[in-house]
Order: sequence, then C-alpha cells, then structure tokens
Amino acid sequence: MEPAVRRGRPRSEAADARINGAALELLLERGYDAFSVDEVAVKAGVAKTTLYRRWPTKDHLVVAVVARMQDEVPVEYRGDVRADLTRYLNAIVDGLDRMRLAGRPAASGDASAGLVAEVAAAAARHADIGSAVQAMFVRRNALVLRLIEEARDAGELCEDVEPEVLFDQLAGALYYRLLITGRPIGTAYVDRLVTSVLRGAAA
Amino acid sequence: MEPAVRRGRPRSEAADARINGAALELLLERGYDAFSVDEVAVKAGVAKTTLYRRWPTKDHLVVAVVARMQDEVPVEYRGDVRADLTRYLNAIVDGLDRMRLAGRPAASGDASAGLVAEVAAAAARHADIGSAVQAMFVRRNALVLRLIEEARDAGELCEDVEPEVLFDQLAGALYYRLLITGRPIGTAYVDRLVTSVLRGAAA
Repeated sequence: MEPAVRRGRPRSEAADARINGAALELLLERGYDAFSVDEVAVKAGVAKTTLYRRWPTKDHLVVAVVARMQDEVPVEYRGDVRADLTRYLNAIVDGLDRMRLAGRPAASGDASAGLVAEVAAAAARHADIGSAVQAMFVRRNALVLRLIEEARDAGELCEDVEPEVLFDQLAGALYYRLLITGRPIGTAYVDRLVTSVLRGAAA
Repeated sequence: MEPAVRRGRPRSEAADARINGAALELLLERGYDAFSVDEVAVKAGVAKTTLYRRWPTKDHLVVAVVARMQDEVPVEYRGDVRADLTRYLNAIVDGLDRMRLAGRPAASGDASAGLVAEVAAAAARHADIGSAVQAMFVRRNALVLRLIEEARDAGELCEDVEPEVLFDQLAGALYYRLLITGRPIGTAYVDRLVTSVLRGAAA
C-alpha cells in the first residue's frame, strides 16, 4: 500500500542513474580540476539546484561517484581465499588506475596518484567529506571483512586471524605505493603481496 | 687543504639548520594552508630570494621539512626484529601524528590526515614534488629494507622474505588507516599489525 499523502517529490532512480553516469563520465574524461557540477547538470539534463541540493560541493559529488564505482565490484568468497582476495585486489587496482588516469591520456606514462590523492586531500580538508569517505569505506570494507571471516570459518585462515588488520595489510600496501612511494601496482605485485600476507614472514 | 679558489658562496650549514628549524616550527604551528615561505624567511633571518632559489614553492619547502623530520628517526636492527620494527613503526606513527595535527589544537579530536594528505596531493599534482617525495621515501625506506635483510640474515625471517613487500604491508596499513579509512593508529594497533605481518594468516 502506498501512503495516501507523499511529502515532497520521490527521488527518481532514473534521474539518479543519469546524474551518476554523467558525473562518472565527465570525471574520468576531465580529471578532478576541470570537473564541474554545473557541467554534470547540463549533461544529465537536470536543474543545477537539484544537484547542489544533494551534493553541496564538487567534492561531495566526486565521493558519490567513487562510491558508485566501488559498488560495481563484486566481493565474494568462493572457497579459495587466495584466488578470491587476488581477484578483489586486482579489481581495486583497476579502479585506482581508472581514477589515477582521470583527465589524462592513458599512455601518458604519468604514475602519479591523481584523483585518488585529491579525494584523500578533500577528506582531510572538510570534515563532512571525510565522514562521507569513511562511511563509504566502512560499508565497502564490511564485504571483504566478511569474505575473510568466511575463509576463516572454512578453515583456510587461522582461527585468530584479525580480518581488519589483514585487509589493512593488503589494501594498505596498494594505496601506500600509489600515494606515497610511487612504486607500481599491478597483477604481479598483487601476487607477491597476497603470498606474503597469507604466509607471513617469521622464520 | 682548502682549494685555493671557491666558486660561488658555500652553502652555510648554520643557515640551513636555521631555515629548516624555522620552517618546521611554523609548519607545525600554522598548518599547511597558513604556512608561507615569506614568513619562514623572516623568522630565519634570511633573504626571501635565498629560500625561493632552493625551494621554488611552498610545497618544495614542506617536503624538505618533512624529509628532515624523518631523518631524525633512527632505524636500526638490534637483534630482535619484532621489537625493532615495532619501535620504528611507533616512530612513524608519532611523526604522522605531528604532521596530522599541524595547525590544530592537540586536543581538537580531529582525526583527519591534515598535512599528510596535503603532501600526498601536492605530490600527485606536481611532477617535481612527486619526484622529491618519492626520492625521500626511497632514501628513507632503504634503511628499513636493510633492517629487514639483516633480520633475515640473522635467521629471524624466512630466507625468501621480500623486504619491500613486507614493509609495504606495515607502513601501508598505517597510511591507509590515516588517509583512507580514518581508523585510529597507535601502539595497540602497531602491535596487532606486527603480529599479523610476521606470523601470516594461512591456516
């Protein structure tokens, strides 16, 4: 049963998808600096006020777009923790590469972190962006923490594994290389990383 | 023997130390936004042109200050890899906390990454800053990679440990929490991290 009286207009899912699609396309094409909320409104065919009501600044919209990108990547335990983590980490690398290259020719050879660093800086500068980014990662990482718990319950990981610490080691290494040391990330590195994390280093 | 003819004026180490000291003090006190090269010149009692000749932008000077801060932290293998890595990671946490809190009251309760994120963003935006940051970490991380190799040679770590991958997991987890997920870092977390990294997760 629908309620007899609705307050305000219901949010249109079609409009949402159109806005998000337009924003993602413009963001990847233009990069962070040249990305503008006004242009998204034009491209999506909605009023600017509609966008600004939901995403008061460009940074808010960027975070929403990145969250939507992340949600497209499945996270699932299929019974082989090494393969399942490897698949997910490679998907993270792909996403980071798309963001990193936003606004640049793919063959630019520029290894810098681009949009990934801009989002981190925006999160550090504005408390509400910081909260939005953290909420996005809490929601997203809950899925991979569950994957790790399932692998533990299936007997593939130690009983006393700490899922959060384990995933910090994996995702952390990728972000650290991208944002801090500038060392390359890719499938070969992901393999070395997963091997090292699962096996440990102590003699 | 001193050479009979000097070309140009030798760089004064005393002036360097004064500039670096003034810059560090101002940076930690004011934070990134309010930090200015001009003010450093005044505080250090040197000509602005002297500073701009060596550090063409504020970002260059910030990276130099951070490098100097890092160099104050000893990295040494003393025969107990767990204790030695723990000590070094806690020193990294202290340094990150100082940078994070630059320009804020210590009791602000603000957990955001502050200056750490600004440096990462500056590195992503300007190729020469990126190179300077990477060079700083190459130089700095060489010390901890050597620590790990020494621990391996002493039989504390596996023969085939990959020092770089091992350290990416440790430092990466800390930066990931600070810059991305906003989860706290501190001595308790460092202990859990070192335990997890050394032991591995596979059952």
